[in-house]
Amino acid sequence: MKTSNLPDIHTDFAQWYQEVVYRAQLADQSPVRGCMVIRPYGYAIWEEIQTVLDKKIKETGHQNAYFPLLIPESFLNKEAEHVKGFAPEVAVVTHAGGKELEEPLVIRPTSETIIHSMFARWITSWRDLPLKINQWANVVRWEMRTRPFLRTTEFLWQEGHTAHETYEEAHAEMILMFEHYVDLAENYLAIPVITGRKPDSEKFAGADITMTLEGIMQDGKALQMCTSHMISQNFARAFNISFQNRNGELAHPYLTSWGATTRLIGALIMTHGDAKGLILPPRIAPIQVVIIPILKADSQEKVCAYAQELADVLKKAGVRVHLDLDDQKTPGAKFYEWELKGVPLRIEVGPRDLEQKQVVIVSRLTGKKEVILGDTLERIISQKIKEEQDALFARARDYRNKLWFKREKLSEFTQDLETKGGFYQTGWCGDETCEEKVKAAKGTIRCLLPEKEFAHCFSCQKSSINDIIIAKSY
Amino acid sequence: MKTSNLPDIHTDFAQWYQEVVYRAQLADQSPVRGCMVIRPYGYAIWEEIQTVLDKKIKETGHQNAYFPLLIPESFLNKEAEHVKGFAPEVAVVTHAGGKELEEPLVIRPTSETIIHSMFARWITSWRDLPLKINQWANVVRWEMRTRPFLRTTEFLWQEGHTAHETYEEAHAEMILMFEHYVDLAENYLAIPVITGRKPDSEKFAGADITMTLEGIMQDGKALQMCTSHMISQNFARAFNISFQNRNGELAHPYLTSWGATTRLIGALIMTHGDAKGLILPPRIAPIQVVIIPILKADSQEKVCAYAQELADVLKKAGVRVHLDLDDQKTPGAKFYEWELKGVPLRIEVGPRDLEQKQVVIVSRLTGKKEVILGDTLERIISQKIKEEQDALFARARDYRNKLWFKREKLSEFTQDLETKGGFYQTGWCGDETCEEKVKAAKGTIRCLLPEKEFAHCFSCQKSSINDIIIAKSY
Repeated sequence: MKTSNLPDIHTDFAQWYQEVVYRAQLADQSPVRGCMVIRPYGYAIWEEIQTVLDKKIKETGHQNAYFPLLIPESFLNKEAEHVKGFAPEVAVVTHAGGKELEEPLVIRPTSETIIHSMFARWITSWRDLPLKINQWANVVRWEMRTRPFLRTTEFLWQEGHTAHETYEEAHAEMILMFEHYVDLAENYLAIPVITGRKPDSEKFAGADITMTLEGIMQDGKALQMCTSHMISQNFARAFNISFQNRNGELAHPYLTSWGATTRLIGALIMTHGDAKGLILPPRIAPIQVVIIPILKADSQEKVCAYAQELADVLKKAGVRVHLDLDDQKTPGAKFYEWELKGVPLRIEVGPRDLEQKQVVIVSRLTGKKEVILGDTLERIISQKIKEEQDALFARARDYRNKLWFKREKLSEFTQDLETKGGFYQTGWCGDETCEEKVKAAKGTIRCLLPEKEFAHCFSCQKSSINDIIIAKSY
Repeated sequence: MKTSNLPDIHTDFAQWYQEVVYRAQLADQSPVRGCMVIRPYGYAIWEEIQTVLDKKIKETGHQNAYFPLLIPESFLNKEAEHVKGFAPEVAVVTHAGGKELEEPLVIRPTSETIIHSMFARWITSWRDLPLKINQWANVVRWEMRTRPFLRTTEFLWQEGHTAHETYEEAHAEMILMFEHYVDLAENYLAIPVITGRKPDSEKFAGADITMTLEGIMQDGKALQMCTSHMISQNFARAFNISFQNRNGELAHPYLTSWGATTRLIGALIMTHGDAKGLILPPRIAPIQVVIIPILKADSQEKVCAYAQELADVLKKAGVRVHLDLDDQKTPGAKFYEWELKGVPLRIEVGPRDLEQKQVVIVSRLTGKKEVILGDTLERIISQKIKEEQDALFARARDYRNKLWFKREKLSEFTQDLETKGGFYQTGWCGDETCEEKVKAAKGTIRCLLPEKEFAHCFSCQKSSINDIIIAKSY
């Protein structure tokens, strides 16, 4: 492991990010263009996220299933908006089993088309509704510029797909799953988000409404974290999904889809990291507490036994604890490594601690050391896990608030947006001509907020339809 | 749901199998050649298998990671045996992002090549060993004849890949994971297996040793369930994986790989099913107990409340219970459905049961009914879950034993093998010329057993190297 300093987080954020990803062994570059290898430590974070999300998905009445990776090219072409959005970035299988295929197959960039084709078979009556399916899968989108976790050719995600009798029910589903994503982001990942509807230009290809969670990264850019969509009725028509409704008439169901990806790991890094590397919120950290024994020749065995005892106590209490007994590394090298990897709490125990039946606890976030009695460990660690989680969220919220500005006109913030980043709340008439001006300033409308503080459009000064957030984005 | 009888399990096993898969909603045909959709009930079985296996994999010190789906075609060509085995069945991506690729990419049929290329980067010293990685993933193999779960173009699996300092350590790893597979098969899936080494002709393409678990299906055919391999040193050489050993010399590590797939769901169906459909072993059943209230107009509410109370008791005790309150179906239709779906235990509660504070428990395996007092439910159900599991295994073991014959010469069983199936233990000289004779009789050598009862080869009568099992296979 390299022990030189990381690139400066303030002046060279992009390079800092890459180095944290590689040095903390979250991911590695692969020999395949735009694809990364998710290493065990990065994958363990994804498993924690999966556990939280899978529970939410099942508790809200969805069932997991699995649909084919390969989709007939003709399926993609059935919904006009969808093909426009995804056709340019699909990977295409033209040969298989030593022969050229009659019809090329695309690797799923998302699974609406294949899943809706099955919905058409499964749904015949209102009694089959709602149909609420989720899939954990890999997808491939041939992106031009890639970055580990943030934008990779292949990524992992969950994609929910549901069908409902009425517009209202589908709309409620879209909102419900959106709110679960907000809960995941804020209460587990400790990332405060700005939420709202996407403007038409930024919607999912084929959606009527796209709801988004925008995270605020430390470099002042927005990261779209999760999205939840009302899918256009065109999909139901294109795939012939229809059912006999309660009045005996044939009707199309209303569809939703919603997804969260491995990109969330990128959000964690960019929201919480510091000069020493990653900082993980305890609720999602694969290792919440690392115990490092300080070994001297004459007490080595006893100190290790004491450290093991502490580890057992914490493990039994349900804490995710790792005891680092590697005898090839100095304590200093271990401190460095586990700080880089963002473990929320470190426990040090040496010969003197053993004598006094005490332990030293160090917070990754503040670096503050505290000496406590060994027999209070379980209680104090469980309290500290909560405190660290809250403190991390509070720090990120403060940071977000400092980067959240309210401005009447684009001209007031064009320069700041381009040079310093930040989030600019303003009014918008809803017109694409005005939206184009934002793009010229290297920003995008990240979302339309539910509230309305500004009466006029940031550009044309006509009446505003909604407040919006303008920012640069990943 | 179709309620006509299933095809006859004795005379038309293949058709019976397909119908159980589709009617029990384990899987559905997809519009993509050779690919199936795994429906929620089938996927829930896979999730139970994953839970058991993932725990074993982690407890034995392996870490999950994720490697790219797409592999440069040149990687596959690096190990001669490997490319010979897999090249004919890969799916090839030739175009992506609207352009022809410079080098085609194959969709992983297995991940040795991409994972070993990363091992070469991660392993430099004996201190980096053992390296023990597992991946849960989808793979694609362009099979000519496909059947749901048993052989599909795309399937889900876990693939373990490890690297070790010494041959002995790698060999022990191969055996350890093999034994965990046996435990999964026998103690969770309730499937007794015949185990041993594969003959050279049936080894994994590029392995020195392949250990196999062969399940015995009710039609007398063998199903290869899981395999564990000692990978040839050629892989380490082909991918330049080398490390400085404890003597300071450069050495190649010894590699293993091992995998279990969604095929296991096919094994469950074909081992335990009967004329009514699927029978699931309780330890792997997504629903262990289904509660069906018998509703009459005047007591409906009270009976439902009682059924709910029972469900809550069981749920709290960790039993996977489903309360079927569907008011569109008769109790009879529900019995039929949950029997088809193989739920191990059914609880019926009607107005009289409510009065007597009792419940009726029915075993899926035996059909036996038992009336018990409601307040003994938790204890009796947990006992019955154990009993049903054991009874299912015992029944399958008896069946295996009845199909397991010992014979001196091929000529004694050629006709039985072809017409009735079955497992024939005999001796073998190890020569491929004799093995060819088995293939001519439509059988294969499923495995070499560790024991040696037969002194002579089934064909040439020369000295036997090992007892073997000959059978027809899926």
